[in-house]
Amino acid sequence: VSLIDIHSHVVPNGFPGPPSACTCGRWPSLEHRGGDRAAVVIGGRDFRAIDDRSWDVGRRVADMDADGISIQALSPMPELLSHWLDAASALEMAHHVNGAIAGMTAEAPGRLVGLGMVPMQAPELAARELERLKADGFAGIEIGSNINGLSPADPRFDVVYAEAERLGLAVFVHALKPLGTDRLVGPAGLEALIAFPVDTGLAVAGFITGGVLERFPRLRVAFSHGGGALSAILPRLASGWAGNEALRAAFPSPVETARRLFYDSLVYDPTTLRHLIGLFGASRIMAGTDYPYAIRQPDVGAWLDGADLTPDEAISIRGGTARRFLGL
Amino acid sequence: VSLIDIHSHVVPNGFPGPPSACTCGRWPSLEHRGGDRAAVVIGGRDFRAIDDRSWDVGRRVADMDADGISIQALSPMPELLSHWLDAASALEMAHHVNGAIAGMTAEAPGRLVGLGMVPMQAPELAARELERLKADGFAGIEIGSNINGLSPADPRFDVVYAEAERLGLAVFVHALKPLGTDRLVGPAGLEALIAFPVDTGLAVAGFITGGVLERFPRLRVAFSHGGGALSAILPRLASGWAGNEALRAAFPSPVETARRLFYDSLVYDPTTLRHLIGLFGASRIMAGTDYPYAIRQPDVGAWLDGADLTPDEAISIRGGTARRFLGL
Repeated sequence: VSLIDIHSHVVPNGFPGPPSACTCGRWPSLEHRGGDRAAVVIGGRDFRAIDDRSWDVGRRVADMDADGISIQALSPMPELLSHWLDAASALEMAHHVNGAIAGMTAEAPGRLVGLGMVPMQAPELAARELERLKADGFAGIEIGSNINGLSPADPRFDVVYAEAERLGLAVFVHALKPLGTDRLVGPAGLEALIAFPVDTGLAVAGFITGGVLERFPRLRVAFSHGGGALSAILPRLASGWAGNEALRAAFPSPVETARRLFYDSLVYDPTTLRHLIGLFGASRIMAGTDYPYAIRQPDVGAWLDGADLTPDEAISIRGGTARRFLGL
Repeated sequence: VSLIDIHSHVVPNGFPGPPSACTCGRWPSLEHRGGDRAAVVIGGRDFRAIDDRSWDVGRRVADMDADGISIQALSPMPELLSHWLDAASALEMAHHVNGAIAGMTAEAPGRLVGLGMVPMQAPELAARELERLKADGFAGIEIGSNINGLSPADPRFDVVYAEAERLGLAVFVHALKPLGTDRLVGPAGLEALIAFPVDTGLAVAGFITGGVLERFPRLRVAFSHGGGALSAILPRLASGWAGNEALRAAFPSPVETARRLFYDSLVYDPTTLRHLIGLFGASRIMAGTDYPYAIRQPDVGAWLDGADLTPDEAISIRGGTARRFLGL
């Protein structure tokens, strides 16, 4: 079965200068550091050390071939999503990043699929951008697990989801600027490990309790990192819902809604993957790697082979679910 | 095997008036509402409708007998913990609530065990109170999953844990005033279902990455609601730790530390309980019900009987682990 990686990130090989309206301290730039190395610099500081795998299609496809990955979905490095910039600047960043992604997918037809970005902080503007993305061949968009602290399931984003549903565009929700960083104790470097799953879990919970799929039943929404903390929240939410008439009247079964959303497989631990299959079903889970970052799941195909999947589960998680999610 | 319920709550049958130093709007009062019914009123509003099971030992023991529970640990209704009051007022509340708990345990020797409260917002003061609790026969204390937004694993609470370790007092960390409430979407009533597990999970993560057990290796710390989101955070934290030399140098294996902490079984779903057993070990999990509240696990013994436990797992979770945690 052909393997599809739903979770990989792109940084363009360079950025335009900051637009005049922009809070320039938050507009990224790329600095080449010799050889294949580079850094994304934001506000005068290195945000992340990267290399040319972030934009080089030849190298990326060679890595995909080595890992047996037939198709990879490209989404922006989440920090590029720019939900915190003024809307005009975020739109300019979107055009630049989406252009880079479109260029990459055009270089490797059939191997790379684009998930673009839109200025979610201006929902009407974001919704209008979706038609352009559809025309340019994108399969969907990536958005943050919160939009400046607001749940992505907040009804003010309905205009985006209405248009995404109409156009058949998928929505990939990725952890970003999480809450809880003031609760971390210990060394630096814990935010992505501890606060990311928390923020993602709250985002999924919002889609469940906020009734987004009741309003947009054909909308396809996926969550990074196996839905983060959702797997631990869901049983308590389901039990509280079952025992509370007001909650039952407000939204449908949390477990049933959870099984209508999508999740990547990026949980590193086969036992946890099996737990997610039990909760969500293999038909909602898609291979994801976080390529090309250090925290990625190496050789995801071999990792899935070691996860004790039934043949049907393997077909779904290796690629069948992703084909449905991406609309391939 | 005798069944021990580690997670049940107490409200005293009445409160003194607010101390002069207190921000009175946050000092609770009890209003009897006829029959066995009452309400905890805070700031002029009903905080929670309760009944005399919150303080009536005879009724509580009869309920324990009906459910086959031999011993119940009594802890304050978390909202009484008063971490947000001035220290002197919190201490006065602690003396009142601890007195009520001590009175209840004295009424049913061998059936009820006390987990008291201390003013964690004043760590030196809290530490000094522990000796009195020990003398009064308490098995330990209950504290919030955050202390006014600060992780309970913050080193400024070391003075409390040092004294708890010295005296052999257990620490039960319970979800309280969680973060993430601004991320909830939908009807009222979701805070305890969604944000509680998130806050608890961050608290456990802090104990893991903050090295508390390295400083106090004999300290016994338990977390409510099966550790909340920790089960979903741990695999990612463990994977990131394994791949990062700076993290490996800063704290020991997250999985190994997680297996040195304690958790209650209050996850409602037998599959989730089995998942926690795989992660933490049955020797770290204790039956817990949240008696007498609506969200409680009814007939926890029958629920455990249906969870497909091995005989050894059943012995641990029904009471063996709790005996070690409580020091019985």
